[in-house]
Amino acid sequence: MAYYIGVDIGGTNIACGIVNDSCEIIARSKIKTNSSGNSLAYKDVLKVIKSAVIAACKEAGIDVSEARSIGVGSPGVCNSESGVVENCSNLGFDNSPVKADLEEEFKIPVYLDNDANAAAFGEFMSGAAKGAKNAVVITLGTGVGAGIIIDKKIYRGSNFAGGEIGHTVIAVDGAPCGCGRRGCFEAYSSATGLVRMTLMAGEENPQSLINAIIKEDGRCSARTAYKAMKAGDAVGKTVTDDYVKYLACGITNVINTFQPEILCIGGGVCNEGEILLNPLKEAVAKQVYSKNSAKNTEIVICSLGNDAGIIGAAMLHKA
Amino acid sequence: MAYYIGVDIGGTNIACGIVNDSCEIIARSKIKTNSSGNSLAYKDVLKVIKSAVIAACKEAGIDVSEARSIGVGSPGVCNSESGVVENCSNLGFDNSPVKADLEEEFKIPVYLDNDANAAAFGEFMSGAAKGAKNAVVITLGTGVGAGIIIDKKIYRGSNFAGGEIGHTVIAVDGAPCGCGRRGCFEAYSSATGLVRMTLMAGEENPQSLINAIIKEDGRCSARTAYKAMKAGDAVGKTVTDDYVKYLACGITNVINTFQPEILCIGGGVCNEGEILLNPLKEAVAKQVYSKNSAKNTEIVICSLGNDAGIIGAAMLHKA
Repeated sequence: MAYYIGVDIGGTNIACGIVNDSCEIIARSKIKTNSSGNSLAYKDVLKVIKSAVIAACKEAGIDVSEARSIGVGSPGVCNSESGVVENCSNLGFDNSPVKADLEEEFKIPVYLDNDANAAAFGEFMSGAAKGAKNAVVITLGTGVGAGIIIDKKIYRGSNFAGGEIGHTVIAVDGAPCGCGRRGCFEAYSSATGLVRMTLMAGEENPQSLINAIIKEDGRCSARTAYKAMKAGDAVGKTVTDDYVKYLACGITNVINTFQPEILCIGGGVCNEGEILLNPLKEAVAKQVYSKNSAKNTEIVICSLGNDAGIIGAAMLHKA
Repeated sequence: MAYYIGVDIGGTNIACGIVNDSCEIIARSKIKTNSSGNSLAYKDVLKVIKSAVIAACKEAGIDVSEARSIGVGSPGVCNSESGVVENCSNLGFDNSPVKADLEEEFKIPVYLDNDANAAAFGEFMSGAAKGAKNAVVITLGTGVGAGIIIDKKIYRGSNFAGGEIGHTVIAVDGAPCGCGRRGCFEAYSSATGLVRMTLMAGEENPQSLINAIIKEDGRCSARTAYKAMKAGDAVGKTVTDDYVKYLACGITNVINTFQPEILCIGGGVCNEGEILLNPLKEAVAKQVYSKNSAKNTEIVICSLGNDAGIIGAAMLHKA
């Protein structure tokens, strides 16, 4: 049995898993990076990665040298050829030679890629997109992340910054987005976008159940509007209908562009399951350009959850 | 010297060229399909294709059997594996076995692809996208056509219907599009979209030079607003500024998704040259997600004009 080490770098945790040939995680570790809220220094992150790798190997009962490779999924623009994180401003480590530093330490091959790419590759290797020649994986979280699989490989673009589908505008002059544009897919279809629309609807409709739920829960979340809708609240229904409308708009754009065999959606919002998925599929089917084609993209919910990032990272030697 | 036959099927003409190894067209033919305005029967189109092939070969002084292959670019959904035009409703020939029928007739290999894909491949083989590993070619004509080159091959999608970038929504609930959606890139950035915006501005501003130009030219074209702008008309300037705004929005979406080395724009509107290209580049540079990357997509104007379709079709054996 061969083992592969997968590392998923997040803003608060670094998660590591030992993955076998069957894409199963046989051991794990998870270490907090820092919780000071300050931006991270690369040398501190590197130390935490090393500790997480050693801890996961110990848990698996192997030496690091027994693993075939280490794969690292990092936020930001990751040059998968040089193994350098070129640009990761929100974690504060630009031009960080992750591959070179970890290879020096552990003397086994190291692969680096963007975290959304790694997660998409995980879903392709052993999750909801398994076996698809072409697939797109879209994560509806704080932002809208995306990973594109073309011809069974990660598509990165010529400068490794491709796949930023969350930052394609669907509503020109629309809601401001963190990237500086207005009306991005992310501004409407992220969990953050859903919370924004929920809060706005609550303010405009004081009688709505939305406000009672916010009060009870102590905060507005991506679940609030769905809770209200399920309890029969008309405003909640309007918000979730609007959410599906924008999501269907962005997803139809992706399908008209890529016509992948499978398009997976993941992230916390997808815990709603069929209540989200069914109207989404219906809305997409009505407007997709290929509606008269015999074969159309299958829209499914991701199946690996947070493990996708670890498994995909571990399998980066195949990507 | 090897010769390759390229056929470009249009709504009114079928153009054929004999192309050499250097991607030069050494002989041509062009035959009207029908001008009755009725939809075309496949068997009639097939006859015209055969005549055009024979005529171009005669012009080149070769026998059809001396050519290595025939490549055909057709509107609609073209299955490049089976060589069948699966869906081409606006020309009225669905499920047409172009490859099988031409191979039976001419006894040389036949390749089929969508016309926008063929034109993009032509620009990649010998035009403005020559040598790029990843490129996107966008044609601003009656519609907005697109062809995607990934890893030096045409990207078609799993059902051969991919690359419909013209039918990605940039303005949710916006202007109606022929595809049934609202706010498509095509509805704003096609020549047709520019004419629509020009006419609207002319109606809203009776004093604008736009109206005088329409009167003088006998019609409103994609050139009208640019003519007015160049003559100092403020309304003309607003229309062309808006046109660039929407075009930059759609093109930035494409770059954020694909990060190609080169993005080519073609079609009649591009005859404006730098008056269009410079403000477009400026607007894209301001909003592209990779604005801090060392390497960014080069935006250029297509260099082959209508020949791109013939050259790309002739070279489909490499696509």
